[in-house]
Amino acid sequence: MSKIAFIGLGHMGLPMARNLLKAGHALKVYDLMQAAVDELAAEGALPARDARDAVAGCEVVVTMLPASRHVEGLLLGDDGLLAEIAAGSLLLECSTIAPESARKVHAVAKARGIEMLDAPVSGGTAGAAAGTLTFMVGGQAAALEKARPIFQAMGKNIFHAGPDGAGQVAKVCNNQLLAVQMIGTAESMALGVANGLDPAVLAEIMRQSSGGNWVLERYNPWPGVMPNAPASKEYEGGFMAELMAKDLGLAQETAQGSLSSTPMGALALQLYRLLLKQGKGRKDFSVVQKLFTE
Amino acid sequence: MSKIAFIGLGHMGLPMARNLLKAGHALKVYDLMQAAVDELAAEGALPARDARDAVAGCEVVVTMLPASRHVEGLLLGDDGLLAEIAAGSLLLECSTIAPESARKVHAVAKARGIEMLDAPVSGGTAGAAAGTLTFMVGGQAAALEKARPIFQAMGKNIFHAGPDGAGQVAKVCNNQLLAVQMIGTAESMALGVANGLDPAVLAEIMRQSSGGNWVLERYNPWPGVMPNAPASKEYEGGFMAELMAKDLGLAQETAQGSLSSTPMGALALQLYRLLLKQGKGRKDFSVVQKLFTE
Amino acid sequence: MSKIAFIGLGHMGLPMARNLLKAGHALKVYDLMQAAVDELAAEGALPARDARDAVAGCEVVVTMLPASRHVEGLLLGDDGLLAEIAAGSLLLECSTIAPESARKVHAVAKARGIEMLDAPVSGGTAGAAAGTLTFMVGGQAAALEKARPIFQAMGKNIFHAGPDGAGQVAKVCNNQLLAVQMIGTAESMALGVANGLDPAVLAEIMRQSSGGNWVLERYNPWPGVMPNAPASKEYEGGFMAELMAKDLGLAQETAQGSLSSTPMGALALQLYRLLLKQGKGRKDFSVVQKLFTE
Amino acid sequence: MSKIAFIGLGHMGLPMARNLLKAGHALKVYDLMQAAVDELAAEGALPARDARDAVAGCEVVVTMLPASRHVEGLLLGDDGLLAEIAAGSLLLECSTIAPESARKVHAVAKARGIEMLDAPVSGGTAGAAAGTLTFMVGGQAAALEKARPIFQAMGKNIFHAGPDGAGQVAKVCNNQLLAVQMIGTAESMALGVANGLDPAVLAEIMRQSSGGNWVLERYNPWPGVMPNAPASKEYEGGFMAELMAKDLGLAQETAQGSLSSTPMGALALQLYRLLLKQGKGRKDFSVVQKLFTE
Repeated sequence: MSKIAFIGLGHMGLPMARNLLKAGHALKVYDLMQAAVDELAAEGALPARDARDAVAGCEVVVTMLPASRHVEGLLLGDDGLLAEIAAGSLLLECSTIAPESARKVHAVAKARGIEMLDAPVSGGTAGAAAGTLTFMVGGQAAALEKARPIFQAMGKNIFHAGPDGAGQVAKVCNNQLLAVQMIGTAESMALGVANGLDPAVLAEIMRQSSGGNWVLERYNPWPGVMPNAPASKEYEGGFMAELMAKDLGLAQETAQGSLSSTPMGALALQLYRLLLKQGKGRKDFSVVQKLFTE
Repeated sequence: MSKIAFIGLGHMGLPMARNLLKAGHALKVYDLMQAAVDELAAEGALPARDARDAVAGCEVVVTMLPASRHVEGLLLGDDGLLAEIAAGSLLLECSTIAPESARKVHAVAKARGIEMLDAPVSGGTAGAAAGTLTFMVGGQAAALEKARPIFQAMGKNIFHAGPDGAGQVAKVCNNQLLAVQMIGTAESMALGVANGLDPAVLAEIMRQSSGGNWVLERYNPWPGVMPNAPASKEYEGGFMAELMAKDLGLAQETAQGSLSSTPMGALALQLYRLLLKQGKGRKDFSVVQKLFTE
Repeated sequence: MSKIAFIGLGHMGLPMARNLLKAGHALKVYDLMQAAVDELAAEGALPARDARDAVAGCEVVVTMLPASRHVEGLLLGDDGLLAEIAAGSLLLECSTIAPESARKVHAVAKARGIEMLDAPVSGGTAGAAAGTLTFMVGGQAAALEKARPIFQAMGKNIFHAGPDGAGQVAKVCNNQLLAVQMIGTAESMALGVANGLDPAVLAEIMRQSSGGNWVLERYNPWPGVMPNAPASKEYEGGFMAELMAKDLGLAQETAQGSLSSTPMGALALQLYRLLLKQGKGRKDFSVVQKLFTE
Repeated sequence: MSKIAFIGLGHMGLPMARNLLKAGHALKVYDLMQAAVDELAAEGALPARDARDAVAGCEVVVTMLPASRHVEGLLLGDDGLLAEIAAGSLLLECSTIAPESARKVHAVAKARGIEMLDAPVSGGTAGAAAGTLTFMVGGQAAALEKARPIFQAMGKNIFHAGPDGAGQVAKVCNNQLLAVQMIGTAESMALGVANGLDPAVLAEIMRQSSGGNWVLERYNPWPGVMPNAPASKEYEGGFMAELMAKDLGLAQETAQGSLSSTPMGALALQLYRLLLKQGKGRKDFSVVQKLFTE
């Protein structure tokens, strides 16, 4: 069992940290929101006064923050946390950030003798709670082997995507494709229903045919087709449209770096921004269905 | 066993007719290309002089033609074939055409006492040869029950999509979604590889994650990821880009009728037309990968 | 002065007919709405009982109808009006319809010895009232010279676009470009204002720079920038979004015939359909600004 | 007459500096390429050894660099050039960069008592040579009045776009609109010609109608329509497609900051990236016409 510092106890970080506790690891936890720290302290974690305090004496550090600027702000710079983490430690940076940001952190960590992995997750808050997240990991294979038991306490599928930053690239590619499929599915559902088809029948035909995809398997955007999908609960819960817009923004930032052309991904981002304008940013991302039906 | 007239012996129709023969049905066949007629005659079908001759004395008529205008041209009008088909017969119209065209034919067939089903297929020439096509069927459920053994001789999944025309609507919705997913997959593959990922690794991560879809399961557009996919055979075989453009055109025609908004589907059509301009129309539709890599 | 039959007295047709009257032509008028007929009769036109009655004894026929199906329905077929119009007459078909429909009518007219021009207009109801419409004319140059005085009574710019159907093609190309520019202008206005610019200042800079266009000259979509533009009158008046959607649909129908790729035009259509879904179809087409601001 | 330091003597900077010389200003010039420095020295400028040397003793500094990172790299940081420029000086930053980068430089300049204007230009190398550039200026109105004679030596239209960064925002908005119009024009030209219209006739009709825009006035993308446009010279000269892709990338970066939705602008960027993939990045940006015709 490891001594682990866990920094960032939001909607995702808190249940992830809880699963590490349950797996028997010794945890020091920190977040700007004291309530989250207190909640985990009541469950057996050691509360840290600040991030510096959290990493003192820990051999593993897990960070789970909102965006590139928070990660760079915390870890880099003259007074950044990387200067406080002991050489030989393992840094598991699980935030979803720009691949370029991840690579900057990798470079500094490496210079200080810290083994780092960029390891963004997919699976949402439900996966975080259930300990069934997917980790897409970039960095050295040897570091991944050391980290594997820790990832396994929080997730189910652990993929080695490639070298430094590759975890973030894989996440961005996957989520861009997911958004394109969600919108594509919503369009075809709306088109079929407007032309007389029963939504459940159409969904089932496409699911079993060449239109089949993860959205049709688990997450149909048409209300009522899947009783447990967010679409059937007024688009509450799930993965918020504004977070999908964030990930699509990262995809475009990544595409800018490589001058890649991604017409579908770019259009998906613009359509999600229309939804944000309509005040639907905090609804589940399947709410894009409503663009085509109301 | 039924007496079946089969009209339209192209890349799809010929192997479909052959499977009916193999299943023991008595077949009269007709096509404008005499060679196709001769080929099936050598295998036991009765060659017809013309379409009128083909349907004479048959209780079931199967048509498999290129486009709406051929179907309307053959069946409708004062000298159309519907006037020659005996009342009480079953007409299985398997071409992929506009839902509106299908409904026109349904109306005339109904007036003449002919039971018609619109029953476009998916599965390509490979599925036609193997007898594993998917049929998406519009029309009366009772007619579908009569036709089921005939469809089963040619296909595996037989879906009742709904009333007259619904088979065509389901096909159009499914193929639009397939095109969107193919392009979305190709974009994410190109983006990931341009940012350092191994294509096979990225493909596998997305396949097992929320980006999963039929394209990633069976038909990866990146050369070499799947040895048997068209992408690994210089995009030969499979489903031609120009046929996907045709289906996307039908989707837009259908969307025009219902004033449905389908931004992804519309963009997919335009991108396929760019490929056609580049002379890639007769390559497999996964050739869209090349837009993003060369 | 000519004896002219004018059929179709809607928002456009009525003021056009009135301008012919004012110019001294003898007019027989017909519309399904008796009120429109009565209104012009009170101003000196001869009211016709039906379309057949209208064309009897006239040497020029002007038609101004909503869509392809109305034009084909009126003029073609065994009992179509082309059978009633005297050989040697001039038919000025001013509706905005599919080029293919226009060519069908041309072919039948030619066979009957009637000189036809397809002559769709632009300029909206304001231009129709003021007699400042633009005519985009397809057909024989000689016929256009005969028709010129009649067009000049209703419009200002009369362009000979080319052979049969070319007027419709030019109209469709122009209006597609107009829609693209309107949306492009609205996007740039919203982007600039969201980043701190004054809308009037930004509009003026772009107007005088390489972003300059007709929309910035006459029809700014940002409320208040131009006091007389529909945007400053809650998007009332002007050219309705649903008519722009119709024209963009004709553009896509035309592109389908030539397999032309028009990504911007296709996207414009889809965005206008989103507006229609939101109940803004009867607002001026500059209402697309709201997609990006609310 | 002023003592001016001019840093950045590329395709744009060199002719701009030359016009300042011609107007009688005393110029110290610097560029990484010694040849450019020598060229201007031969015309009367004082060659500087480095950027620091260039600004010493000057009351006005003009910078014209390729991108945000060059501008930030030159001016900011502990050893940045802003530390070398005398308080009370005027800094005219004419590069086209991200508004956010411009605002960073503004903030540091202000802290050091330097009056800065962000003043990107449009008009291309031809406008730079002729002294007819357009300047879009962000910053204090008083500073602009001081700078006006200097701008007037290089340009014709000088717009005050607004506060710090507003010049860059205006540039980005204008160029996004220009790209959208260029592609929209190219699409409509290709659609019309594919349907039988003469390109020169179509271009003229749209130019005089509601499709009118700067592209149709000066820069038609169809070869032969305008003898002096790049399209008639195999798309040589003018404004390179890769620079338009850069500006569209800045537009998307700006839109990301404000979560603005710009579907047309985003699509324009993706289409220009397709052109770059095809090796057409160094052709004039009207080369987008070829996407739709070959």
